[in-house]
Amino acid sequence: MKKVLVLGAGQLARMMDLAGAPLGMDIKAFDVRTNKVVHPVDPEHIYGDLQSGIAQCDVITAEFEHVAHNTLNECEKSGKLFPSSDAIKIGGDRRLEKALLESCKVANAKHVVIATKADFDQALKQLALPIIFKSALEGYDGKGQWRLKSLEQADAIWQEMEAFIANATSSVAQGIVAEQMVPFDREVSLVGARNTHGEIAVYPLTENHHTNGILSVSVAAPSEASLQSNAAEVFKKIAEQLNYVGVLAIEFFQVGEELLVNEIAPRVHNSGHWTQQGADTCQFENHLRAICGLPLGGTQLIRPTAMVNVIGEDDISDEIYSIPSVAMHWYDKAKRDGRKMAHINLCGKDEVELAERLVQLSSLLKQESFPDLDSFAKRYLAKVSQ
Amino acid sequence: MKKVLVLGAGQLARMMDLAGAPLGMDIKAFDVRTNKVVHPVDPEHIYGDLQSGIAQCDVITAEFEHVAHNTLNECEKSGKLFPSSDAIKIGGDRRLEKALLESCKVANAKHVVIATKADFDQALKQLALPIIFKSALEGYDGKGQWRLKSLEQADAIWQEMEAFIANATSSVAQGIVAEQMVPFDREVSLVGARNTHGEIAVYPLTENHHTNGILSVSVAAPSEASLQSNAAEVFKKIAEQLNYVGVLAIEFFQVGEELLVNEIAPRVHNSGHWTQQGADTCQFENHLRAICGLPLGGTQLIRPTAMVNVIGEDDISDEIYSIPSVAMHWYDKAKRDGRKMAHINLCGKDEVELAERLVQLSSLLKQESFPDLDSFAKRYLAKVSQ
Repeated sequence: MKKVLVLGAGQLARMMDLAGAPLGMDIKAFDVRTNKVVHPVDPEHIYGDLQSGIAQCDVITAEFEHVAHNTLNECEKSGKLFPSSDAIKIGGDRRLEKALLESCKVANAKHVVIATKADFDQALKQLALPIIFKSALEGYDGKGQWRLKSLEQADAIWQEMEAFIANATSSVAQGIVAEQMVPFDREVSLVGARNTHGEIAVYPLTENHHTNGILSVSVAAPSEASLQSNAAEVFKKIAEQLNYVGVLAIEFFQVGEELLVNEIAPRVHNSGHWTQQGADTCQFENHLRAICGLPLGGTQLIRPTAMVNVIGEDDISDEIYSIPSVAMHWYDKAKRDGRKMAHINLCGKDEVELAERLVQLSSLLKQESFPDLDSFAKRYLAKVSQ
Repeated sequence: MKKVLVLGAGQLARMMDLAGAPLGMDIKAFDVRTNKVVHPVDPEHIYGDLQSGIAQCDVITAEFEHVAHNTLNECEKSGKLFPSSDAIKIGGDRRLEKALLESCKVANAKHVVIATKADFDQALKQLALPIIFKSALEGYDGKGQWRLKSLEQADAIWQEMEAFIANATSSVAQGIVAEQMVPFDREVSLVGARNTHGEIAVYPLTENHHTNGILSVSVAAPSEASLQSNAAEVFKKIAEQLNYVGVLAIEFFQVGEELLVNEIAPRVHNSGHWTQQGADTCQFENHLRAICGLPLGGTQLIRPTAMVNVIGEDDISDEIYSIPSVAMHWYDKAKRDGRKMAHINLCGKDEVELAERLVQLSSLLKQESFPDLDSFAKRYLAKVSQ
């Protein structure tokens, strides 16, 4: 029985455990807040500290990229860590990420890395407005970001960013990456896996919708073949450059027929949760297969599938279970504003049926907790019904 | 969060837990061998005794029908047990089962209940040869069964059965049910659910193949509509007669276009394991939905799906993971001859693809551990390729 230690004890480790148990794998999670190894589904079961966790497992992986570097380094020393600490660190630092994209020669937004006022001024010169500034470390789901629409805002934003950099407590120096805003048509992501033997399998592109900077809905439906193969090519370049092992997610801005990489996540990803119902093998199982050296499972779309995030809400009507194909995935977390509490997957035999079910789902949910879902679902239904 | 206590701590409780965690349910299992409530996936975690388990849960159910009657009665008293103890007991006693089938007026094999030598002689008069004798209590997967092909065997078989009845240690008197052998064309089963509100949903008929009296392969593929509706009608009669709540499995002998009930199982069933990959909502989730009063999930066949049991074998080549759609389900049990260790599900876009994948799967498994699989898979491929 393969023993896997996951760095991080959140919903991604939880879903890895639920996917790994049928494979006969023993999954444990390292909770970075308490420094204890715990059961990923029943965290009241505590097994020990990081050192014993490392000693007792066969393989180590991570459910998030913001793991302390000394922890990553300790895991890397054991020779059991997949993906490598370098790959995980790149996911946690936009400066490294941009350098990787440049070295792979994959298209991405025009950008400038900022550490000082001089860099900031340089960014204002080199980039056209509007500019989006993103913190290099941490900061996701809309946190640690600033938008500059007119130069009059520049001083105020620089002061905020300067304080942000100065107040950073991480062991690595904080910084900012300035990007020229991309007038994208839509945001899509590609989730795929590369195993220890170098085998690659990617899922179909997923279209993502955000609400207040947090992913709210992902839809997996057939894309144009050329777009899918472009995305797969980018995946291959990045994964091979990193000698990556595990599931890797790449977020893109689509502009016309072009795909610009927005960011990469060296882990299973929220935009891949639909794979639990929509693909032969879900991203959690494929991640485990990849890091344990097993052949990768099928990544083709079985049926059009959507995922709806449940954010800051723990009270969902039981009526949703009457919608065929609805699959609820609770994370067993205490309710908190803005917190990802669960997701709901649903499928349709075609996109029309999927869209109809999304409209029905939305009608059974509290509008204030899913503010954009109804309009999205109706737009989607109108589009696919044409 | 709904708290569910399962009587029995085997693979069925384990798979209920894996299906229940995403629903936000807390599943615990009562191990009837140790009389302890344990974690269904990690049984080294012990929570307490039956009494505290009953007190702390919202709903009680069973993963098998051979639960001691005093345990069932204690659970029933709490008002939390679904299905009822009567329904569970019927599944554990062929005499009650036959009486139920008669009271529902559903077709079944001609039979005689035997307690004494006089009953045995009566059976020989009333039933045509060959006759199969089955113990009324326990005895499944081919144990506690005798076949009488000629009257010359009668004395020897009676002596064996008489000793078997006399040596029984159960609190209820052991007995025998004699059945006239049915010259069936195939064995099929119908798995379905009825929830606390009386809503019913049934899966498509599954064709079952046994090796040495143990289920080895189940195939779920579209059946004739008339056969499916006949089976669904039988399901409705039995489930409503019992005011049944939960998943119920009915095994049939198919003779021409007729279905004779062979036996019923008041629980999730091995022949329904394919639903984990082949249906919107698997039998484990639908069982939990049913007993917790939730609407039932989709039971339609997504794609032709097969299940292969792994019996007495714990060494399966990793190569099987290279077959698209293969889903492995290990039960984390110590290897023992004849023990169900795991099952493998696989799907195809049509029956030809499914059959091809079954042939491929068989070629990667040890023939001695899957003695009939290769010939079955090749026959199946030949049939569906016509």
